[in-house]
This record gives sequence, structure tokens and C-alpha cells, in this order.
Amino acid sequence: MTVVEQLTAVLGDLVDTDAAALEAARADRSGHAAPGRPLAIVHAETVGHVQHTLRIATATRTPVVVRGAGTGLAGAANAGDGTIVLSTARMTAILEVRADDLLAVVEPGILNADLDRALAPHGVWWAPDPASREISTVGGNIATGAGGLLCAKYGVVRDAVLGVDIVLADGRLLHLGHRSVKGVTGLDLTALVIGSEGTLGVIVGATLKLRRRTPGAVCTLAATFPDVRAAAAASAAVTAAGIQPAIMELMDAASLRAVHALLRLPAPAPGTAQLTIQTDGPAAAADADAIAAVLRTHGGSTTVTHDPDEGERLLAIRRSMHAAMASLGTTLIEDVAVPRSAMPVMFDEIARIERRYGLSIPTVAHAGDGNLHPNFIFEGSDTPDVVWRAADELFRAAIALGGTLTGEHGIGTLKSRWLAEELGDDQWELQRQIARVFDPLGLLNPGKVFADRA
Amino acid sequence: MTVVEQLTAVLGDLVDTDAAALEAARADRSGHAAPGRPLAIVHAETVGHVQHTLRIATATRTPVVVRGAGTGLAGAANAGDGTIVLSTARMTAILEVRADDLLAVVEPGILNADLDRALAPHGVWWAPDPASREISTVGGNIATGAGGLLCAKYGVVRDAVLGVDIVLADGRLLHLGHRSVKGVTGLDLTALVIGSEGTLGVIVGATLKLRRRTPGAVCTLAATFPDVRAAAAASAAVTAAGIQPAIMELMDAASLRAVHALLRLPAPAPGTAQLTIQTDGPAAAADADAIAAVLRTHGGSTTVTHDPDEGERLLAIRRSMHAAMASLGTTLIEDVAVPRSAMPVMFDEIARIERRYGLSIPTVAHAGDGNLHPNFIFEGSDTPDVVWRAADELFRAAIALGGTLTGEHGIGTLKSRWLAEELGDDQWELQRQIARVFDPLGLLNPGKVFADRA
Repeated sequence: MTVVEQLTAVLGDLVDTDAAALEAARADRSGHAAPGRPLAIVHAETVGHVQHTLRIATATRTPVVVRGAGTGLAGAANAGDGTIVLSTARMTAILEVRADDLLAVVEPGILNADLDRALAPHGVWWAPDPASREISTVGGNIATGAGGLLCAKYGVVRDAVLGVDIVLADGRLLHLGHRSVKGVTGLDLTALVIGSEGTLGVIVGATLKLRRRTPGAVCTLAATFPDVRAAAAASAAVTAAGIQPAIMELMDAASLRAVHALLRLPAPAPGTAQLTIQTDGPAAAADADAIAAVLRTHGGSTTVTHDPDEGERLLAIRRSMHAAMASLGTTLIEDVAVPRSAMPVMFDEIARIERRYGLSIPTVAHAGDGNLHPNFIFEGSDTPDVVWRAADELFRAAIALGGTLTGEHGIGTLKSRWLAEELGDDQWELQRQIARVFDPLGLLNPGKVFADRA
Repeated sequence: MTVVEQLTAVLGDLVDTDAAALEAARADRSGHAAPGRPLAIVHAETVGHVQHTLRIATATRTPVVVRGAGTGLAGAANAGDGTIVLSTARMTAILEVRADDLLAVVEPGILNADLDRALAPHGVWWAPDPASREISTVGGNIATGAGGLLCAKYGVVRDAVLGVDIVLADGRLLHLGHRSVKGVTGLDLTALVIGSEGTLGVIVGATLKLRRRTPGAVCTLAATFPDVRAAAAASAAVTAAGIQPAIMELMDAASLRAVHALLRLPAPAPGTAQLTIQTDGPAAAADADAIAAVLRTHGGSTTVTHDPDEGERLLAIRRSMHAAMASLGTTLIEDVAVPRSAMPVMFDEIARIERRYGLSIPTVAHAGDGNLHPNFIFEGSDTPDVVWRAADELFRAAIALGGTLTGEHGIGTLKSRWLAEELGDDQWELQRQIARVFDPLGLLNPGKVFADRA
């Protein structure tokens, strides 16, 4: 029997070989696609289905690509020739909510925003909020170690997971972590699985650490600056002043101009960059006033609103970034992170790289945590070599500043050639050996993360 | 040449074979000692000294026990026959403080309290606060994944480390993590090293995530309850009510009685248990009032003070616990953690185990995060078998409640026989294989954590 026949014999209708579905599984939201086409998609509905699939994969030495909603931006869930796509998108149950213990137990396929809406009546909050939260799964959030807009104040997904259940490549189920908020029993494999991008095991359940819903109103500020360096310096000064906004987003001039064009707003003055900041909690108003004062001393023109609708209107400009970039051409979204004080220098480096390679690199940043998203724009579906060379310099600049080549999107296929550069050869090899302990045959997401070095 | 001669040839006076020093290195603060005596202590002062020591250890296949201040409570730093003790206690430098980026770079031997005092003039705070903070090192804090009194609100050490530098058993130096607050580049080996108890590598440096110093006053509450179950239920109700104290400590009747006797305070009424709670930040007073109301509805008699000195006097009762236990006999301090709502049931289990084995098990708890420290008291230096049997039941009860056998002290030697019980055989074996990737010859802390199973 072929692999697909073996899968179908055990899993029946859950095995999907529809041509359009297979085609869709080749790509994620990065716009990049794996070469070739997968053998089949298994739409797992239970842990048992995941175990059956992996046992067949191991017996037949067939590579497996785990997929949630396919909203990744680094190619980690792109499924190519000869692979089984193992989808956990149908495993959407919320198994338990304990508001008193601030925890929930969920299946991996539930969407981040759906989970949070289900928690709201309990007075608790699933804080991790990738921009994709309405369309991305909790399992994918964990597998990529994703961030979001609120994470400077409320942490990333790594801070919000008490335990994960994973199925290993050979079909064994492991329960990692525990339900208590503290615990140091052996090595922290839960932390190791977070951000492992499908290379260690298949996440089939998670015990999540919740927060109380934040009471009180929010305040929203928008501030414009004559250039991006001033905006970056102002945002770093907010952090250095000891004020903690919930959201602090920076848009450079090219980004702001593109969004204004998309939304048919008046064009900003040339060079104008913008910070959009939101404060929350009992001190929201006082924090907003203190932040506005810092921004003004750094040359910002500020608008503050206590009206939630007006605040959403201000934030909508930032939220339209992805659409605005897509309107300009094919986009390669990068994701470097640097210490917050290094943001002005990082923007200088981006400007230098733009000049050197004759490129425009519109950049937005989660300025509260030093995470920048430079966007390379080009025509057609193949990333031009000049873009890769410019990206290469961008990564080196971030690493030289004490940062990293990916703050929240992951390595996937798109950054694997730079992984050893950041880790060093010794750590790269050590990490690959650790992955082999989980997956000795190398069947889980082969060619991702630890692909051969450039 | 012998191993000691080889060490001395390279490291000279840093190699210590003084009999009293070797004897002291056999034990930590658990009161338990390793059998036999180590070969020598190397007092490393630089990363290079650590690398030299480990290269000789690897060449001669000599086991190495890393030691900071020796304040551990699980035996992980106890050095027995034939081992080299590698002490990082002299590596105390603060290499960098960046208040704007909320980070510091330090050597591992600096004491937690010394670091925090050095940070105070910069307006930043090293929040992890094990009870041993005046005498324990930052490196030991990281190596054990320690907790403390404030961690329900301000996190454990795991939440406060951006990166670690480690030397592998073969002498290679690896830089794990980065200086940016976000980063998902490859597997999170920083998280894996935190709490690894000297089994993966020697921590020779750390990049720490600091907090702003909390402005404003603190409020302190003490509340007595007719029995420990009521106190436990009241503390769980505080968490469930969505109020976050900075400190919430519970003492059962036997603990409270022993401390009152030690401090020559009037004896509490039989059965009386106590909660000691501190709130901080701008809402300290309002939070304290809200907490007092919750405690009273659960049968508590409350005292609230806004006076810092009076607050310290109330907390001194809790801080005298260790001395009070020592005055009763030899102590085996346990460290189970459970979900907060399970604390009343866990106290029921402790009472049942006391009755079954005819033991008194005075227990204190970091009630804000469900971490209990049951103290077994006995005569002499050898832990009686009945204590091990009672401890065995205690661990099983905690695990059955979704908890763990160690919340903050670690596995070391004292809990290694129960590790597989909590992890399951498959995960236990996987963890041991991961340790072997770092340390293929098994030279780092052999017989600790992954010792043979019971």
C-alpha cells in the first residue's frame, strides 16, 4: 500500500487529497511556497488521529509538516513534495477554564481570538495577541513562540503557557509541564517546545496561563515626528522613563505614506514618522499624559484621546500596514529585534542599507520591545537576489547590536540560512542534536529551521 | 600526574585541597551531604579558569560539581568522592547595567542581594528574591530556577533572564539568548539551562531582565484563622478575586507555634494559622483593604498596617520559620506546588499523612502561587525511612492534584527518586538524552537529577 492508502485505511475521510487543498498547503502568509506538492492532508480531530498519522509516517519514513491555520510568516508550515500535512485545525475544543486558578486547557486548533471571546464571560483573558489573532491558532502561536502588539506589557506566548502535550514522531504522547504556576521538575521541555516550529513534536494540547481582564478605560495617543530616528528615540525614551504602555507602535515615513494612500487620507508631510501608543489600567490617563510629555520633548506633535472609538481609528492606521504593503507589490516581511535603546541606530542601518542597495524598506516596529518589521517590496513571486543581500546585511546589523534575526515570526525556511550565523556553529549543532533526540529519524518538518547552512 | 596535579599545574593557587573546605563542599543547606569527599575545589575567577578546569575534567574523565554559595536545598551542589568542585563564587563582577534597556550583564557568583543593592542607584530592580537572597548567588538562582516570596506578582528567575553564557563539559563556551526582550531564533536553550541544576553546563555569565523599582509605599496585613484549611481557602479566594498581592505567605499552626516560641511571643490559640500579606504599588492601600475584606468573609481576624517598620515586624514571623524548624531538630524541607485552588485539599492531604505516619509536618506556603514547604523534623543526621515514606505520599498527592514535587528548590539528589514518577518514563529518558547532548560523557553533576530510578 502507498502511504496515502495506509493513512486512508486507518483514518478514512480525514485524509484529504483534494488538489486545491494540497496546493494551498504549500504556502503560508509569507507568500512563499514549498517546491512540489504534499501527498495528503490529514485533518486530525483527536489525539489518536495524530498518533495514528505519526506511526504511519514513522513506519514509512515519510516526512510530516504540521499545520494550524497557515498564517505563519517564515514558511515553517509550508508542505512540499512527498510530505504528509498533519492539520490540527479541527481540534478546537476548550477542555477546561479555571478562572480561580487563572488557567485554561485547550486543543491546539482553536483560534486565538475565539479562545479569548470564550474566556471573557469568565473574567479572564488570553493575552498573547499576534496581529493575526482572528485567524491564527493557539497551537501555531505556541509553535512559533509568537508575539504581538501587547507583549511589551503583557508578555509573549512563552510567558503564558504552563504545559503542552505533544506527540513525538513515533506516536508517543508526552505531557510536559504542570498546572501549578511554579515548578522546576527536571528540564523545562515546555519552554523548549515553545517556538520549536514543528521540529520536536506535534502540539495536541496546552495548559494556558491566563490573566484577569484589565479593568478600566484605555487612552490612545498618536504622535508625528519629522523623521523616523526622532520617533525611535522618543519611543526608547518612553521605556527609559519607566512608563509602560500597553501598545507602542512605530511607523516610518514610507509605511505611513503607503497606509495614508490606501485609506485615502491626506498625504503626510515628507519624512513624517508616527508613534501610536495605548495605555490601560487604572493609571491609563496619567500614563498617557506622562508619555505625551516625553514625546513632545523629543519633537513629537501629539494627539491624545480617551474615546475608545477614536482610539481604534488611530490604531486602524497601524493595522492597515499589511494591506498597504500588499498593495505595493510582493512583500518579504522581516522581523529583527534589538535592545530598545538601539532602535535609532537600527533605523540608521536600515537607511544605509536602502541607499546601498537602491531599495525602499518600509518599516514598522513594536517599539515597546524593540521588534522591527522591515518590509522588502518587489515585483513577481521570486525574491530578487538584491533583496536577500540587503536582508543579509539587515540581520547582521541586528545581531551586532545584541539583537536577533527574528523577534516573533520564527526561522522556518526563510531565515534558516542565517540561523548558524546568530547561534554560532557549536550551538547550531547542539540544537540540531537536541531536535534529533525528539525525532531521531528527522521526519518532523525536515528542511525547516535547521536546514543546511548558507 | 594526578587530576589535582594537572589542575594545579594550570591553575596554581586557585586549586584548594584544604580539608575543611573539602568537607564543607560535601553539603548544602539541605543538611544532607554527599558520601566521600571531593578531590579539590577550583575557585574560578575567570571564564578561562572554568574552561581549563573542564578540559582537564574531560581529558581525565573526572566528574565535576559546580557550586555557587552552597545554599541549595536539594543536594544538587553536594560534592562527593572523586569529584572536582568548580566554584564560581569568586566571579562576582557586574559587567554592565543598562537602566534604559532594563538589563544587566553579570558574572554568576554575585549574591542576589548585592546585585540588587548595586542596581538601586540606577532605579532598577533584580526582582527574583529567594529567601536566601542575602547569601545565595545569581548563578545558583538561575541553575535551580529558584522562586521566592515576591514571585506570584513579579515572576520567578525564569522570567528574568534574557541569556546565559555556559561552558560545556568539553570546555567550549556558548552564548545562549540575546539582549533583546523578544527573540525566537531556534530552540530556547536559555530556558532549558534555567533550572538544569548543573547538569548541562557551567553558567559563567547572564544577561538579566530588570524591572523598574516599584514606587510608593507597601501595606502589610496579618490575618489569623482558626485552622489552616480556612487560611488556605482564604488565600485561594484572594487570588480568585483578582487581587494580586506582592507577598502572600501562609503558616500552619505548628509553624506559627514554633516561631512564636523561638521569638518568645505569646503562644497562639491551638490550631491558629496565619496569612501574612503585602501589597505594593500605587494601589497598595486599596488592594490591602480589598484583601482584608476577602479574608474576613473567610473567618480571618485581620491587622493592616501602612507603617513599613510594623510591616517588617509582621513579616519577621514568617522569616523566622527556618530558624524555628532548626530549633526543633533536623529538617527535611519539601517544596511541592499545586494549583492555587487545590491548596485547601493539599493541606487536608498533609493532615492525613501526619496522622497515618504519626508525624508532625509543620508547613508554610507561598500561598500566592500554590507552593508549599512541608517540613519533616527528626533527630540525628539520617532521614528516617518513615519520613521518606511520608514524603513519597506527599509528592504523589501533589502530582495527583496537577502539581509538581518541586516548585522552586529543584531535584538534586533528594528528589531524584521521584522524578520519573512525575515525568513518566518516556519523558524521563528523553530529558536524560538531552542532557547527554550537552555532556556526552556524563561528567557534569553525575548522580544528580537523573539518578537511577527508585
